[in-house]
Amino acid sequence: MPIVNAYAAQDANSPLAPFQIERRELREQDVQIEILYSGVCHSDVHQARSEWGPSLYPIVPGHEIVGRVTAVGAGVSRFKVGDLAGVGVMVDSCQHCESCAEGLEQYCENGHTTTYNSREKDTGNLTFGGYSTSIVTTEKFVLQIPTSLRLEAVAPLLCAGITMYSPLRHWKIGAGHKIAIVGLGGLGHMGIKLAAALGADVTLFTTSQSKAEDALRLGAHHVIISSDKEAMKAARASFDFILSTVPTSHDLNPYLRTLKRDGQLVIVGAIDPVGVHGGVLISHRRSVSGSNIGGLAETQEMLDFCGEHGIVADIELIDMQDINTAYDRMVKNDVKYRFVIDMASLK
Amino acid sequence: MPIVNAYAAQDANSPLAPFQIERRELREQDVQIEILYSGVCHSDVHQARSEWGPSLYPIVPGHEIVGRVTAVGAGVSRFKVGDLAGVGVMVDSCQHCESCAEGLEQYCENGHTTTYNSREKDTGNLTFGGYSTSIVTTEKFVLQIPTSLRLEAVAPLLCAGITMYSPLRHWKIGAGHKIAIVGLGGLGHMGIKLAAALGADVTLFTTSQSKAEDALRLGAHHVIISSDKEAMKAARASFDFILSTVPTSHDLNPYLRTLKRDGQLVIVGAIDPVGVHGGVLISHRRSVSGSNIGGLAETQEMLDFCGEHGIVADIELIDMQDINTAYDRMVKNDVKYRFVIDMASLK
Repeated sequence: MPIVNAYAAQDANSPLAPFQIERRELREQDVQIEILYSGVCHSDVHQARSEWGPSLYPIVPGHEIVGRVTAVGAGVSRFKVGDLAGVGVMVDSCQHCESCAEGLEQYCENGHTTTYNSREKDTGNLTFGGYSTSIVTTEKFVLQIPTSLRLEAVAPLLCAGITMYSPLRHWKIGAGHKIAIVGLGGLGHMGIKLAAALGADVTLFTTSQSKAEDALRLGAHHVIISSDKEAMKAARASFDFILSTVPTSHDLNPYLRTLKRDGQLVIVGAIDPVGVHGGVLISHRRSVSGSNIGGLAETQEMLDFCGEHGIVADIELIDMQDINTAYDRMVKNDVKYRFVIDMASLK
Repeated sequence: MPIVNAYAAQDANSPLAPFQIERRELREQDVQIEILYSGVCHSDVHQARSEWGPSLYPIVPGHEIVGRVTAVGAGVSRFKVGDLAGVGVMVDSCQHCESCAEGLEQYCENGHTTTYNSREKDTGNLTFGGYSTSIVTTEKFVLQIPTSLRLEAVAPLLCAGITMYSPLRHWKIGAGHKIAIVGLGGLGHMGIKLAAALGADVTLFTTSQSKAEDALRLGAHHVIISSDKEAMKAARASFDFILSTVPTSHDLNPYLRTLKRDGQLVIVGAIDPVGVHGGVLISHRRSVSGSNIGGLAETQEMLDFCGEHGIVADIELIDMQDINTAYDRMVKNDVKYRFVIDMASLK
C-alpha cells in the first residue's frame, strides 16, 4: 500500500500534525491523483474538533481537492495520466438507490461515503481527505477541471462552489430573479459570483458594513446591513429567493420577511435548529428548504460553467504547516474568502 | 341601514351574547344573503378572545357562511334571488396588486379585508361575520354553492375545506403521491377527504389512538400514532407531502423526518414559532412552507369539486345560543369535526 504524507488530528483536542497514511492500491476503476491544492472548509474544523457528532480518528480533513492524475486503473475512460482532476465531498455512494439513479449521490438513500471522516463501504477502512499529497478515488467520483482557471483557486469550487450552485440551479434562478445571499464567507462569496453569472439581481445581507464594498466588487448589485431595522423593513416582500450560508443556528424570520409571496429561503450551512415562525410562512406562502452540496453531474456542470465564466474563489494560499493558525482565523471569520493549502509544502 | 340579529363578544373576556348590527345598504355590485348556516372555526375563538393581537370589538365571528340570496344590486350577474350562496374568510381585497391579478386574493399585497374583525376599505366600518341572520357582500367575494350537498355541512368548506384544498392543489397532489395529514380536527378531517378524493394515498398522524378508526372511515388509508417512536422511525423518508393542521406552536422535526427527498411539509394552522432543524432539511432537500386559505377562483373550484365528489364536513349542528359551550368544547378538541350554527335559532 502506498504510504503518503498527510496532516491529521488524533483526537478532538489536538492540533493537526504531520501523519502518514496508506492509500489503497489502484483498482480497475480508480484514479490516482497527486494533490496540488486542497481548500479548507469550515466543516473541516467542525469535524477535526468532533463538533458534529463523534469523528473517526485519526482524521485527515480536506474535501476541496485538485491535482494531477498520476495513474489510472484499466477500466478508467475519462482520465489519463497528466490530466487535471478534482475530488469533492464524496468518494462513493450506493449507486443503486433512486437518488443515485437520478445523479443525486449527495442524497444517496444508503448514505454516501464522505471524502474523510467516513469508512469505505467494502473494506471498512477510514477515508482520508485532501490534507495529503495524493488520493486514490473511483473514477465516478473524480471531476474534470477546466484548464483555463487558476488551479489553486479552483479547489474551493468542489465544496463551496457546488453548495451554492446546486440550489441556484435546482430552484432555476436566473435573469429576472431578485435574490439575496446571507453572509459573506467562503460560501457567500461563491454564491454572489455564481448567482450574478446566472443573471440574477444579487443582494448581500451582512452584519458587517466593512464587507459592503467587497460584496459589490465580487458582483453583488446591492448590500443590506441586516442589523439596520429600517433597511430590513424596506426590503419586506422583495426577494424571490434567498440562500443563507450562516453556518450555525440563526433566526430565519428577518430574512423570510423579505421574501415575496411564494419566495424560497434555502439554508446550506446550519445543521442546527433555525428560527421559523409559522405566520411568516403562511402569510405569503413562503418556503424554507435545505440543500446539501450537489451530485456529480451537477458538480461537473458547475466546474464547466466556472470555466466558461472565468469564476474561481478568492483565496489565501497557505502552507500545510499553517493549518492550525488558519483554523483559528477561519473560526473568527478572518479569511477572504477561503484558505487553500499548497500541497508542495508537504512534499 | 338594515338592522339584523347577531351574536357578538364585546371584549376579550366576555362570552358571546345577542347583539344587533347594521348591514350596509345594497350597492350595485352587492349580494344580500340570508344566512342559513354558519360554521364555527377555531380562529373564531382566537379572535373573539383577542388571542391574535388586539381584536376590533364588538366582534361578530363567523366566516363559513352559507345561505340564500335575498337581493342583488343592479350590477350583479352571477346571482339572482333564491340562489344558494356562500361567503368565506374574505369579503374584499385591493383588486389591483399582483396577487389579486393572479386570483390569489388571500395574499393581497395591500391586505385583504376579512369577513369579521376588520374594517371596510372605503367606509372604515367594522366588518361583521356569519353569526348573524344576513350579510351583504360584493359579488366578487360570493361563492356559488352546489345544490347537491347537505347545506349545513357545506359551511365548513368555506374555511376548513379551502385551507386544505389550496395547498393540495398548489403542490399538485394526486394519484401516486404518499401524503400525510397531521391532526384530526376541523381541518384535518377535510384534508383526509379531499386528499383521498384527489387520488393520494393518505396517512393520518395523530397522538390519539381513539381517532384511528374514525380516520379510516373518513378515507385515510393508514394511521400513525405520532407518540409511537418505533412507528415514526419506520415512517422515515416515506412521504411526498405533509399538511400540518396543528393550530399552535409545535415541533415539525418528527414529521419532517418522515418526508422523502424533496418532500414538502405545509403548515396551515400555526401562526406561532415552529421547530425546524436545519440538518433535517439539508439532508434530504426537504421544505417547510405555509399556506393561507385560498383565492376566490380556487374556492369556487373546491366547492365544485366537493359537489362532484359528494364531499361535505362532518358536523354537529347547534343553536346560536349554544355557542359559548361549543367554544369550550372546541378548545378541548371535543367536536367531530366542526360545529355549525343553525341560524334559524337566531330569528
